[in-house]
Amino acid sequence: MRAVVYRKPFDVAVEEVPDPRIEQPNDVIVRITSTCICGSDLHMYEGRTTAEPGIVLGHENLGIVEEVGGGVTALEEGDRVVMPFNVACGFCKNCLAGLTGFCLTVNPSGFAGGAYGYVAMGPYPGGQAEYLRVPFADFNCLPLPEGTEHEADYVLLADIFPTGYHGCELAGVAPGETVAVYGAGPVGLMAAYSALLRGASRVFVVDRVPERLAKAREIGAVPVDFSAGDPAGQIRDQTGGEGTDKGVDAVGYQAMAPAGDHEEPASVLNELVRTVRPTGALGVPGLYVPADPGAADENARHGMLLVAIGALFEKGLRVGTGQANVKRYNRQLRDMITEGRARPGFVVSHELPLDAAPVAYQKFDQRVDGYTKVILKPDAT
Amino acid sequence: MRAVVYRKPFDVAVEEVPDPRIEQPNDVIVRITSTCICGSDLHMYEGRTTAEPGIVLGHENLGIVEEVGGGVTALEEGDRVVMPFNVACGFCKNCLAGLTGFCLTVNPSGFAGGAYGYVAMGPYPGGQAEYLRVPFADFNCLPLPEGTEHEADYVLLADIFPTGYHGCELAGVAPGETVAVYGAGPVGLMAAYSALLRGASRVFVVDRVPERLAKAREIGAVPVDFSAGDPAGQIRDQTGGEGTDKGVDAVGYQAMAPAGDHEEPASVLNELVRTVRPTGALGVPGLYVPADPGAADENARHGMLLVAIGALFEKGLRVGTGQANVKRYNRQLRDMITEGRARPGFVVSHELPLDAAPVAYQKFDQRVDGYTKVILKPDAT
Amino acid sequence: MRAVVYRKPFDVAVEEVPDPRIEQPNDVIVRITSTCICGSDLHMYEGRTTAEPGIVLGHENLGIVEEVGGGVTALEEGDRVVMPFNVACGFCKNCLAGLTGFCLTVNPSGFAGGAYGYVAMGPYPGGQAEYLRVPFADFNCLPLPEGTEHEADYVLLADIFPTGYHGCELAGVAPGETVAVYGAGPVGLMAAYSALLRGASRVFVVDRVPERLAKAREIGAVPVDFSAGDPAGQIRDQTGGEGTDKGVDAVGYQAMAPAGDHEEPASVLNELVRTVRPTGALGVPGLYVPADPGAADENARHGMLLVAIGALFEKGLRVGTGQANVKRYNRQLRDMITEGRARPGFVVSHELPLDAAPVAYQKFDQRVDGYTKVILKPDAT
Amino acid sequence: MRAVVYRKPFDVAVEEVPDPRIEQPNDVIVRITSTCICGSDLHMYEGRTTAEPGIVLGHENLGIVEEVGGGVTALEEGDRVVMPFNVACGFCKNCLAGLTGFCLTVNPSGFAGGAYGYVAMGPYPGGQAEYLRVPFADFNCLPLPEGTEHEADYVLLADIFPTGYHGCELAGVAPGETVAVYGAGPVGLMAAYSALLRGASRVFVVDRVPERLAKAREIGAVPVDFSAGDPAGQIRDQTGGEGTDKGVDAVGYQAMAPAGDHEEPASVLNELVRTVRPTGALGVPGLYVPADPGAADENARHGMLLVAIGALFEKGLRVGTGQANVKRYNRQLRDMITEGRARPGFVVSHELPLDAAPVAYQKFDQRVDGYTKVILKPDAT
Repeated sequence: MRAVVYRKPFDVAVEEVPDPRIEQPNDVIVRITSTCICGSDLHMYEGRTTAEPGIVLGHENLGIVEEVGGGVTALEEGDRVVMPFNVACGFCKNCLAGLTGFCLTVNPSGFAGGAYGYVAMGPYPGGQAEYLRVPFADFNCLPLPEGTEHEADYVLLADIFPTGYHGCELAGVAPGETVAVYGAGPVGLMAAYSALLRGASRVFVVDRVPERLAKAREIGAVPVDFSAGDPAGQIRDQTGGEGTDKGVDAVGYQAMAPAGDHEEPASVLNELVRTVRPTGALGVPGLYVPADPGAADENARHGMLLVAIGALFEKGLRVGTGQANVKRYNRQLRDMITEGRARPGFVVSHELPLDAAPVAYQKFDQRVDGYTKVILKPDAT
Repeated sequence: MRAVVYRKPFDVAVEEVPDPRIEQPNDVIVRITSTCICGSDLHMYEGRTTAEPGIVLGHENLGIVEEVGGGVTALEEGDRVVMPFNVACGFCKNCLAGLTGFCLTVNPSGFAGGAYGYVAMGPYPGGQAEYLRVPFADFNCLPLPEGTEHEADYVLLADIFPTGYHGCELAGVAPGETVAVYGAGPVGLMAAYSALLRGASRVFVVDRVPERLAKAREIGAVPVDFSAGDPAGQIRDQTGGEGTDKGVDAVGYQAMAPAGDHEEPASVLNELVRTVRPTGALGVPGLYVPADPGAADENARHGMLLVAIGALFEKGLRVGTGQANVKRYNRQLRDMITEGRARPGFVVSHELPLDAAPVAYQKFDQRVDGYTKVILKPDAT
Repeated sequence: MRAVVYRKPFDVAVEEVPDPRIEQPNDVIVRITSTCICGSDLHMYEGRTTAEPGIVLGHENLGIVEEVGGGVTALEEGDRVVMPFNVACGFCKNCLAGLTGFCLTVNPSGFAGGAYGYVAMGPYPGGQAEYLRVPFADFNCLPLPEGTEHEADYVLLADIFPTGYHGCELAGVAPGETVAVYGAGPVGLMAAYSALLRGASRVFVVDRVPERLAKAREIGAVPVDFSAGDPAGQIRDQTGGEGTDKGVDAVGYQAMAPAGDHEEPASVLNELVRTVRPTGALGVPGLYVPADPGAADENARHGMLLVAIGALFEKGLRVGTGQANVKRYNRQLRDMITEGRARPGFVVSHELPLDAAPVAYQKFDQRVDGYTKVILKPDAT
Repeated sequence: MRAVVYRKPFDVAVEEVPDPRIEQPNDVIVRITSTCICGSDLHMYEGRTTAEPGIVLGHENLGIVEEVGGGVTALEEGDRVVMPFNVACGFCKNCLAGLTGFCLTVNPSGFAGGAYGYVAMGPYPGGQAEYLRVPFADFNCLPLPEGTEHEADYVLLADIFPTGYHGCELAGVAPGETVAVYGAGPVGLMAAYSALLRGASRVFVVDRVPERLAKAREIGAVPVDFSAGDPAGQIRDQTGGEGTDKGVDAVGYQAMAPAGDHEEPASVLNELVRTVRPTGALGVPGLYVPADPGAADENARHGMLLVAIGALFEKGLRVGTGQANVKRYNRQLRDMITEGRARPGFVVSHELPLDAAPVAYQKFDQRVDGYTKVILKPDAT
């Protein structure tokens, strides 16, 4: 089959690779109809990871069940399904607690958590391809309504819609609250959108790219341009000096210093400590890593960051971190899409055939021509 | 009346000061029968704060209602009461949410939260004295059973028993879980004791003072001597390599480096990140401050600490911080004492008359002669 | 001052009564600008309670602080405030837990809970009047933005908006869930509206009055006309046979039998047991009473109803009951109104001067001329 | 193999039946070493169900994995495991929410929930036998420490320890609270024991059998003999007139009238409404059924019971019902046993070889010779 293969930094290609096959009775094979390129794919693309050449990329996958293993109970050939980016077993201690992003079974490295097509996340080829093997399929496939409707909404259930929602869940966003979301990329916009779906009274979105801020405004959030000055100050000014009840970090360790001229990995965390009012909470779905070879200083290379712990403690803040447990949210979010109550697809900028992947990676990486969220369609021509 | 007054670093005295009086209709005056010296009093004693000479110390207070303001509803002369160290109004946004440690009303400085006898926590003289004025008395007085029984247990409801319990609450300690508590001082022991009361299956307590570790063992915890090597490693070895479900930092910013020869303010936090298993949670009642003039480096002086954010995120940990909201727990903990289900008084080392305060401060500060937790008795001779 | 006084069954009048005055240092006097007639006022109006002639009615009150007691901290003359229908102290065990509808302090009868202008709910005259005395004013007054904007939305914070929301809270309505609300009167509509604000994916509203069902449709709910047949069956048909995740009873003990010809007090409860899927939950803000002299049979007269406990248990349902703890929700709901995220005033049918009260009670009781929710304006002429 | 077979009312026998075998790749076969007789087995034994002759009984099963299906990941031959009485899939909507007692997959009848050896709970033979087939084995087997220690404690993890704990969970029992448990049979004692493990300050246990009340006292609960008068009154007298915070119904629909001379199916529920204070909560693990052919009146035959809904609502009580989701608790409770923090085996009265089953059923049913909880040992002779 054809698949998007990582060859070397800044070089992916659509190549022929062996078809996946049922390896274990709980597997299914899914024919992919939609698969997204994720911002986190760019970490590999840019060569800032230890990903080896040859890996098939893609962890945001939707398609049709093509073949079913002998141990699978609830799925049939022809079912339309979307898979969380996390591969999970469903029966370990963490999966039982709903923390499927930290499955103790699926990653032979001993690391808690697995994913498709991602370095160090286990032996699971990605879905930017014609077919995908899904292990523990009863657990990992979420059924969708038959047909092809809302494909651009449903495919976001694989990662960014639940990841944005997870930011709100980590922060405990409740009806009537005020929320500050840092970052108006796809995940940040999904976090802001989720906050509004959960009944937040006011949601601020901090970024400096005018197009992103415009998107934030469109969905009903208040854009805050940090190039115009201290975002915590701007938000306090708009909240009677109080700050917000909750904050979401949708940026992570590649945050820029306020001046915008170099990375300052804890700058968003520290700005959030200033933004959120005493007793508030922070949700941190934005990625931080324990080893970052590209970091500017020795501490940051080991994931050690200078954080305003004193101020954080004095305010009595709570902080929730970690990658999303997609399975915990995808059913409810699917139902919101099906009933017309959520249309997350507004963040999608391009739908392209699989063969366009090399160009799409390049333009998305350079943030040119409006590439913000790309869906690849392996069955398109 | 007589009261313990801070005069200058390493110098407190029992002096005559004016009697407190009803200043507002919601006040009561309490005749103090038991009042503790707290580890946090030593910050002032050692001159590491901006406390001015003349302040009356003491925020762990128990006594008998002596006089009642005209707006008070539920209290009468003669009632035996214990007061949370936090002064709180009961009706602001934070108090309504149970976050009485962050009251928005009582501190004229604009800071969220008030306390008796403490620098920067509002204009409330302390209770190491014969009498104490208690504002918003219906809210701030917890009634106790008549008499004088269990005085050494009940007085701990003012601060350290709820503060230790708060560490467990911040970490979400649930029945059957494993917990690591760093620090076996009074608060750490109360945290370990609380974890066991909540049904933890195993509680590790990390310290290096043999007497403290012995106390931990007495209450059913597993002592871990960090002078014998890497505590996170010791705990992982005793949990099948997994680490604990939860962790509590009962040390704070004056943590020592593992070698024990100098302060390393984030060392406990970072050790906890290593100790707790992926998906776990940390409760941090241990004090961190945004300004520490005595810190060893410029960053620490501003409360900026080097924290293993990368590892913390990768593990998906949650962190809860901040001083205890005593009011949220003191009623239930009182009932556990009254029914004989809790006897926190095991941490008390000395009960002394008020006049012994200068000696008690000195010996407690030097940790000599077994001074670990002192109750002063203003009515003793 | 002028006030709406209950004289005898089906007879209320606007009469001169003594002005309220500060009786306790924590009191304020509020000049009423908006005060609603509640469906529960009709219980007294119809003579189905033990209310004595002379009682001043009105528990949904909004106005301007006119006079402030000496113990009040956070309010000033001129502040615009809305009061929960519950009178509560703020410091008893139940108030501390946020259960202000069950205050243990304010009702001398020993009953848990107090209210303005309501039989058996304590000595608190109602606010269908020019002025109202508010006890424990710091706790019981919710400040509103200055001015007169959104008066018809804000006044609903006194009761029916939080009461509808409370139904959702009791049922634990979460984002993405399906909900069935029985009753499309003001409280039922507020419950449906709240469910949608909380992110429910689909909300069914059961009634048989076409105008009410039309209102339900307008706000985005699915109307279910029970005169057209078994509502549980209709809802199961629209949920793939499954039933809803959650249910809200906004009808109570005066429920009609399905045929609509006589009262059958447990009919809504039992229909909800059939409507909600296994593991679901019911929120029951709808009133049930332990003594109903007007009931059709001896058991019902004592509040003993025939309930499908066997089916309820087999499905593992959870049930939450009781009048709303308005204080727990009113701040957040206020903020949703202020920010334009909620406009509950859509249920208001009439705004009338106080003198119109006798006619308004009569027409509202008879459900004629579109009287569904009336606001009285004591300052109008 | 030999197994306990139901033949007709009051007649079970140990018979030869076919050995179970792997039927599906996710199955394992367990060699049973301990299996209990449950009070709910007596419903079938007494002929009060539609159980057909030939059914193999037994849903409280512990043993050693003997054979492993090809889809099983985490289990090996020789593993010691205990199985929840619920058979569950691990991936349906209810299992994902932790509500494994209401699995939507395993019961072909369409009913939510499955069990071993129980009428109407699916095609799963029981474990009062030499071997047991366990479907979805990765999900349904809980690993135990190797060896044979604490067998009488661990086997209770299959049902009654988690079921008693579930009663506390349904009622939300929290540290420091007071709890009333109705019924001092094995489940009631486990509920009281669990309440104490969770930190309850005082636990009342209501029964009238002196031996049972003595057991309650032994574990630290307060026995209340209802033959000595109104239990709600007795408990209110011991709680300052207030009643308890929480209540657990461990009796169910076969409750006796206070006089003790006939069944009155809602008598415990209604007594709990009287026992628990306003704002309290009830946990109802005690069985209620929608069809009871043996009931005294027509309503009860359909599970329609006369309940004090008026009083329940006025008090604002919450009620949680349904059979236990054992999987949700068994891991933590296992860890409490392993660490010596819980020893539920104190309720076990007899350990007998499998052949003793007919006598054990008879004596347990008649409550003679101290038969309260019997463990059958298929490998004993």
